[in-house]
Amino acid sequence: MADIGFGVIGAGYMGKAYAIALSQVSTVYEMPHRAVKRVIATSDAAGARGRARDFGFERGTGDWRDLLAADDVQAVAIASPTFLHADMAVAALQAGKHVICEKPLGRTAREAAQMAKAAQASGRVTMTGFNYVKNPATQLAHQIIAGGDIGEVIHFSATHVEDYLMDPALPHDWRQVAAHVGRAGALGDIASHAINLAHFLVGPVAEVVGMRQTVHAQRPAGDGMAAVENDDQAQFLMRFASGVPGSIAASRIHAGRKMGLTYEVVGTRGTVRFDQERMAELQFYDAADRKGRQGFRTILAAPGHGDYGRFCIGAGHGFGYNDMIVVEMAEFIRAITEETPAWPDFAAAVHTAAVVDAVLASCDQGGWIDVKAIESEAWA
Amino acid sequence: MADIGFGVIGAGYMGKAYAIALSQVSTVYEMPHRAVKRVIATSDAAGARGRARDFGFERGTGDWRDLLAADDVQAVAIASPTFLHADMAVAALQAGKHVICEKPLGRTAREAAQMAKAAQASGRVTMTGFNYVKNPATQLAHQIIAGGDIGEVIHFSATHVEDYLMDPALPHDWRQVAAHVGRAGALGDIASHAINLAHFLVGPVAEVVGMRQTVHAQRPAGDGMAAVENDDQAQFLMRFASGVPGSIAASRIHAGRKMGLTYEVVGTRGTVRFDQERMAELQFYDAADRKGRQGFRTILAAPGHGDYGRFCIGAGHGFGYNDMIVVEMAEFIRAITEETPAWPDFAAAVHTAAVVDAVLASCDQGGWIDVKAIESEAWA
Amino acid sequence: MADIGFGVIGAGYMGKAYAIALSQVSTVYEMPHRAVKRVIATSDAAGARGRARDFGFERGTGDWRDLLAADDVQAVAIASPTFLHADMAVAALQAGKHVICEKPLGRTAREAAQMAKAAQASGRVTMTGFNYVKNPATQLAHQIIAGGDIGEVIHFSATHVEDYLMDPALPHDWRQVAAHVGRAGALGDIASHAINLAHFLVGPVAEVVGMRQTVHAQRPAGDGMAAVENDDQAQFLMRFASGVPGSIAASRIHAGRKMGLTYEVVGTRGTVRFDQERMAELQFYDAADRKGRQGFRTILAAPGHGDYGRFCIGAGHGFGYNDMIVVEMAEFIRAITEETPAWPDFAAAVHTAAVVDAVLASCDQGGWIDVKAIESEAWA
Amino acid sequence: MADIGFGVIGAGYMGKAYAIALSQVSTVYEMPHRAVKRVIATSDAAGARGRARDFGFERGTGDWRDLLAADDVQAVAIASPTFLHADMAVAALQAGKHVICEKPLGRTAREAAQMAKAAQASGRVTMTGFNYVKNPATQLAHQIIAGGDIGEVIHFSATHVEDYLMDPALPHDWRQVAAHVGRAGALGDIASHAINLAHFLVGPVAEVVGMRQTVHAQRPAGDGMAAVENDDQAQFLMRFASGVPGSIAASRIHAGRKMGLTYEVVGTRGTVRFDQERMAELQFYDAADRKGRQGFRTILAAPGHGDYGRFCIGAGHGFGYNDMIVVEMAEFIRAITEETPAWPDFAAAVHTAAVVDAVLASCDQGGWIDVKAIESEAWA
Ligand SMILES: NC(=O)C1=CN([C@@H]2O[C@H](COP(=O)(O)OP(=O)(O)OC[C@H]3O[C@@H](n4cnc5c(N)ncnc54)[C@H](O)[C@@H]3O)[C@@H](O)[C@H]2O)C=CC1
Ligand SMILES: NC(=O)C1=CN([C@@H]2O[C@H](COP(=O)(O)OP(=O)(O)OC[C@H]3O[C@@H](n4cnc5c(N)ncnc54)[C@H](O)[C@@H]3O)[C@@H](O)[C@H]2O)C=CC1
Ligand SMILES: NC(=O)C1=CN([C@@H]2O[C@H](COP(=O)(O)OP(=O)(O)OC[C@H]3O[C@@H](n4cnc5c(N)ncnc54)[C@H](O)[C@@H]3O)[C@@H](O)[C@H]2O)C=CC1
Ligand SMILES: NC(=O)C1=CN([C@@H]2O[C@H](COP(=O)(O)OP(=O)(O)OC[C@H]3O[C@@H](n4cnc5c(N)ncnc54)[C@H](O)[C@@H]3O)[C@@H](O)[C@H]2O)C=CC1
Repeated sequence: MADIGFGVIGAGYMGKAYAIALSQVSTVYEMPHRAVKRVIATSDAAGARGRARDFGFERGTGDWRDLLAADDVQAVAIASPTFLHADMAVAALQAGKHVICEKPLGRTAREAAQMAKAAQASGRVTMTGFNYVKNPATQLAHQIIAGGDIGEVIHFSATHVEDYLMDPALPHDWRQVAAHVGRAGALGDIASHAINLAHFLVGPVAEVVGMRQTVHAQRPAGDGMAAVENDDQAQFLMRFASGVPGSIAASRIHAGRKMGLTYEVVGTRGTVRFDQERMAELQFYDAADRKGRQGFRTILAAPGHGDYGRFCIGAGHGFGYNDMIVVEMAEFIRAITEETPAWPDFAAAVHTAAVVDAVLASCDQGGWIDVKAIESEAWA
Repeated sequence: MADIGFGVIGAGYMGKAYAIALSQVSTVYEMPHRAVKRVIATSDAAGARGRARDFGFERGTGDWRDLLAADDVQAVAIASPTFLHADMAVAALQAGKHVICEKPLGRTAREAAQMAKAAQASGRVTMTGFNYVKNPATQLAHQIIAGGDIGEVIHFSATHVEDYLMDPALPHDWRQVAAHVGRAGALGDIASHAINLAHFLVGPVAEVVGMRQTVHAQRPAGDGMAAVENDDQAQFLMRFASGVPGSIAASRIHAGRKMGLTYEVVGTRGTVRFDQERMAELQFYDAADRKGRQGFRTILAAPGHGDYGRFCIGAGHGFGYNDMIVVEMAEFIRAITEETPAWPDFAAAVHTAAVVDAVLASCDQGGWIDVKAIESEAWA
Repeated sequence: MADIGFGVIGAGYMGKAYAIALSQVSTVYEMPHRAVKRVIATSDAAGARGRARDFGFERGTGDWRDLLAADDVQAVAIASPTFLHADMAVAALQAGKHVICEKPLGRTAREAAQMAKAAQASGRVTMTGFNYVKNPATQLAHQIIAGGDIGEVIHFSATHVEDYLMDPALPHDWRQVAAHVGRAGALGDIASHAINLAHFLVGPVAEVVGMRQTVHAQRPAGDGMAAVENDDQAQFLMRFASGVPGSIAASRIHAGRKMGLTYEVVGTRGTVRFDQERMAELQFYDAADRKGRQGFRTILAAPGHGDYGRFCIGAGHGFGYNDMIVVEMAEFIRAITEETPAWPDFAAAVHTAAVVDAVLASCDQGGWIDVKAIESEAWA
Repeated sequence: MADIGFGVIGAGYMGKAYAIALSQVSTVYEMPHRAVKRVIATSDAAGARGRARDFGFERGTGDWRDLLAADDVQAVAIASPTFLHADMAVAALQAGKHVICEKPLGRTAREAAQMAKAAQASGRVTMTGFNYVKNPATQLAHQIIAGGDIGEVIHFSATHVEDYLMDPALPHDWRQVAAHVGRAGALGDIASHAINLAHFLVGPVAEVVGMRQTVHAQRPAGDGMAAVENDDQAQFLMRFASGVPGSIAASRIHAGRKMGLTYEVVGTRGTVRFDQERMAELQFYDAADRKGRQGFRTILAAPGHGDYGRFCIGAGHGFGYNDMIVVEMAEFIRAITEETPAWPDFAAAVHTAAVVDAVLASCDQGGWIDVKAIESEAWA
């Protein structure tokens, strides 16, 4: 069967992650189709050619529109700074490409919805880079919850806290500029992962109330200081459409946490807990266990949990960050070649963006905000 | 020096805990004063005499007013259901006794404030049974925070989640009756511990926004069912008077958690984390640690941390639930004999009660509520 | 029913622990008999009177033989340095007292056996202070193993590692003098706890092969240095009488471990694991759990596990070091008043001592050593 | 620069792992050379062609000698059952290929030494598949130890315990046949990893004493049962050449442990601890930490620890099983292209094999066995 030619836009953190994933996905999944690394685009032609060599792409380009014009490219992965996502994704869809785009999809729910509308119009496959839902441990959590093993869900809580900006001496960059990423800082960059997980595990969110803070108001830029235009930390309460209550906290200055994406879903008959810093394990409490022998179990990721078995047939042998990107890419490719669903597609990412916008509105206005209204308006 | 005669009211869960603590406190602390277990009062004279024998009191009574009338009783410990606290404590103070009273102090901030006013009028020592602040691990956390080891505090979060009522077949009892404990369920019973800890570690709370749920609306009572009149779970955001943001979640139906009193205090240079289920350890992240060697440290409670060394001179040898009550009792006795401060006294407990009332108001009205206003009104 | 008068010999680490335990045991257990702290003996009369005041004994003495002569003393607890145990215990038994004696029982298996023979001759109750077997988590482990929940036992491993002597600048003391504690250092002082646990959980040991090291050969003493006469660390393999293989490692210089008494018992259908630094929890793996949901469970100590419920009716609320001593004391008192068995009695402690002696012999001679032969010889 | 053509022999567990690693190694490391998957060999031509397609090799063959004859293959990875390693590796070296071969290198130290001698004669690069030493957490442990951060090493202990054969109903396979893997079962299959780690972290082993057991003596084979010819579990004490004491336990029937490769290295000033089930973290105790603030730190793998940063620039984001094979492969390729050292080469693996043989001898003969003698004899 035919190969799938890929173009990747961006060669930074996630651009490299995509390159690694594309290198191995067909082998891991023993796919009839090989993903082929055709073109990588960055903002500079010479640099792009270097990255093409580094990452094993056939060619590099300084102009992402070139990449979209290439006939041997069927699928595009967008890993550029957030403000470029919309233009690139829409153009790619219009050029007939399937698109996987990094999160957050756009800077606002409205921008995300424009992308989602372009996706619908194109009939192409889309996917948003909320890779953490692809973790086998989280796939297991989903299976436990959806299968009713913890009874009816009664509570959700999550955090996504890291400390990559805790040092106030770290230089100002595009992540602190509202025009580049939107008004949401930690809220947009990482709470979005937790929101997407909430959506995945418990369902859509109906209303929120929140607060946020910019602890380090300025950061070094050149000889002086530049204003940080979005939040360093944020937290909010929420009510799911199902009525379930929940909360999310996010921070990029949370000392000591490196990948503090955690969640706990409580049901009437059990609980699941997860911490991405121990990404290959899930805590599970089953109230049906024999009295006197009850306790949280540490379930190590193993064949049978999500796609773990594709990577290794040894239980508990470990699962890594890049492996999640491989799972994501496999789902994207299967959606292209077998017309299976891919999740979260652009439409699903609009919901995440609407929750972020609702929290921003709550921070501005001070009370509970209806998510549905914001989401509908974004699509209007 | 003279012995201190004690009367204990209530011989249930906490009544026994007080009896155990009184038995050993003078030995653990090698005190010049021996605490003497004079009288125990329950609601029934014969039963009280039995409990006196069981717990080693000199005598038992079915009338707590007898206990207050006893000349050989200088200090009273109140461990009766919450709705009785105010009458008993006020009467005890008026009888010239020093009083340690279980939490929550009253059913409302107003009731708590009445008790606190009686305390002020009496000039006697008071203390409220928020025992968890006495844990050496938490005393260490306080020392780390107050000493500036984590820099400026920027975030607080806590939970107090248990599952003692998760089974809907458990019978209705006084903890579900508003007249007995107030309108706050998990919020009053256990969130109050977390609020008191927030107060202890970070300072007073200025405003809150919250939500709460009664998941099991009825419980078996006799042949039929009785309505549960307060919340099974609750969660709220808060802003401390210092401006620091925070959140607390509480539940009595959180499957799997038996003593899920946890907190995390984040500062600009480090973090402390704690889980009462591993009550003799504190997690500490110090950003000043050498690069490449940073990580959360598990500090085991040891001599030098709070009063640990009084109990055992071996580091990391363990510290138990009742030991915290002993620490509390020692502080109470020292306050009586040496006029050192005791915390939380009744006045401090009014703040906790005001936060609970503010969360209730927020749940009723739907937005942010000012705690100060409620607290002032309670004292008025 | 009659009170039980206690005499305690020694007022150091364990002397105080006994005093604390005696203070509360009757209240915790709601016993018909009150344990009464009559006399405490140390090596100095004035000091002993001070400790009597500190710990709430009726009187103090500088001569332990006085204590044995007292008519109001029915039971004696020996917490003096090890070389004194034999003389004191034998004299106490001969004086008709029941005796609980700290571990290691004697400096050698032979000395322990002399004590055990005196016990048999006296008909009095004896017990040896291997308190860790009294931990509810370990009582649960015993129940799980004995009940067949992990199938047939196929492997045992344990450590008892601490770091109380890791600093080479710490002064020389009696624990490093062969005449005072025997030739076994960490091996006698703490491996003995692990051996006793092995005995409790899996049964008697048949043969051993071991090695040991004195890492810090000298320690400061006065103006100079004194030789350390026993091992800082030791490790050995063993075969139980049942054929099960096992191993134990012990150290008093193991950086970072404060109470590293750990064990793991593997069966054909499950495993239990324990670490005394998290003394109120047991890890349990049950291979009968549903496939895909298997994992070690963290069982928090709770009512129903050993005597936990005597101390607190809240599950997972914590259990401390001194609480174990209370359990031990309760078992000792019940054995006296109700003629129930107490374990480990002196006879059981001879087995532990024989294993220690066998390891010493193996270190001397270099191969496998038969424990039975040494134990028989000790009794001869 | 030129590409490196690879041939892989075997397409099972490790064959696939090699294929995955080869797919991505050049991208992860941004290498000037691309590793090219030329040929995969299995025992059956049609099957091999299928696996070539599955894994993205240019071609497949049913005859591994074909693979060795190919001019476009410069490097060979051997992932066949153990008894085939020696013939294949020696032939490959003689054909001028660089060889990476799975562990254990041979069935005996003698067989391993024959391979190592062929390696020396050939001048080609060799490497043995002890992948766990490539884990960034373990590279960090090595750096901490070698840099003197824990002082002088005084103790080593390790386990490699799994439960992949705990079910007695699992069918007999080549891993239980002495002719196929040697007389060492768990000892050869997995203790060998722990031995290699001991070698890496602490140095060569001088003497051992051990014991081993075959718990399930027969396993189903066809209609009947076949004898299990090697150990299910084994444990031994050892003394390193440096005099440091240590121990290793291994099992393939240890209920609940899926990847229980653990080690602890104690020094005079600190300790490191590791558990491969939490493969991206290292526990580190530094006795130089401030008093009262000491504890084991959980260091999450991050850029700066081994080659972690090649995979992901986010600290603590996770590292997986296959990533270790990528590191291994990168080291192998660099050794070929840049003549840097690769470890463990075949010569180093002889030491591991000699320790295994020494433990077998000790199990046979019952006492301490000198490793050096066995190792010298193997090379003779
Ligand atoms: N899913 C996840 O876990 C993560 C997602 N992200 C997301 O990925 C996106 C990229 O972030 P990073 O990789 O961290 O950024 P980065 O700064 O490391 O890399 C950005 C890349 O985009 C390229 N680029 C910039 N302008 C371009 C243009 N006009 N044309 C072509 N290329 C251009 C740059 O040359 C650079 O290679 C962001 O939206 C971010 O939110 C980032 C990190 C983790
Ligand atoms: N600090 C902590 O961790 C805990 C605090 N508490 C608090 O302690 C208080 C008591 O709770 P529990 O001990 O759990 O209750 P419980 O139901 O176990 O015991 C209540 C006791 O009060 C006695 N009592 C009732 N009416 C009386 C009267 N009129 N006169 C004299 N005695 C009377 C009963 O006889 C019984 O002995 C509550 O306010 C509760 O919130 C309870 C558990 C833990
Ligand atoms: N079960 C456990 O966990 C522990 C057991 N132990 C054991 O307890 C025993 C005592 O150890 P520690 O309390 O640590 O020692 P320590 O040095 O703290 O106290 C020893 C006490 O014995 C007294 N003593 C010494 N000679 C005496 C004499 N001739 N007459 C009366 N009293 C005398 C001393 O005055 C002192 O009060 C030892 O056998 C030790 O192995 C010690 C610590 C923990
Ligand atoms: N480093 C590690 O963590 C691990 C190492 N291993 C080692 O890897 C080696 C292979 O083990 P597995 O992959 O588990 O075995 P496996 O049974 O999964 O695969 C063995 C492969 O060898 C092939 N093979 C057998 N005879 C052959 C022949 N004559 N010519 C060509 N190919 C032949 C088979 O077709 C099969 O593809 C063993 O030495 C084992 O000890 C295995 C698992 C993990």
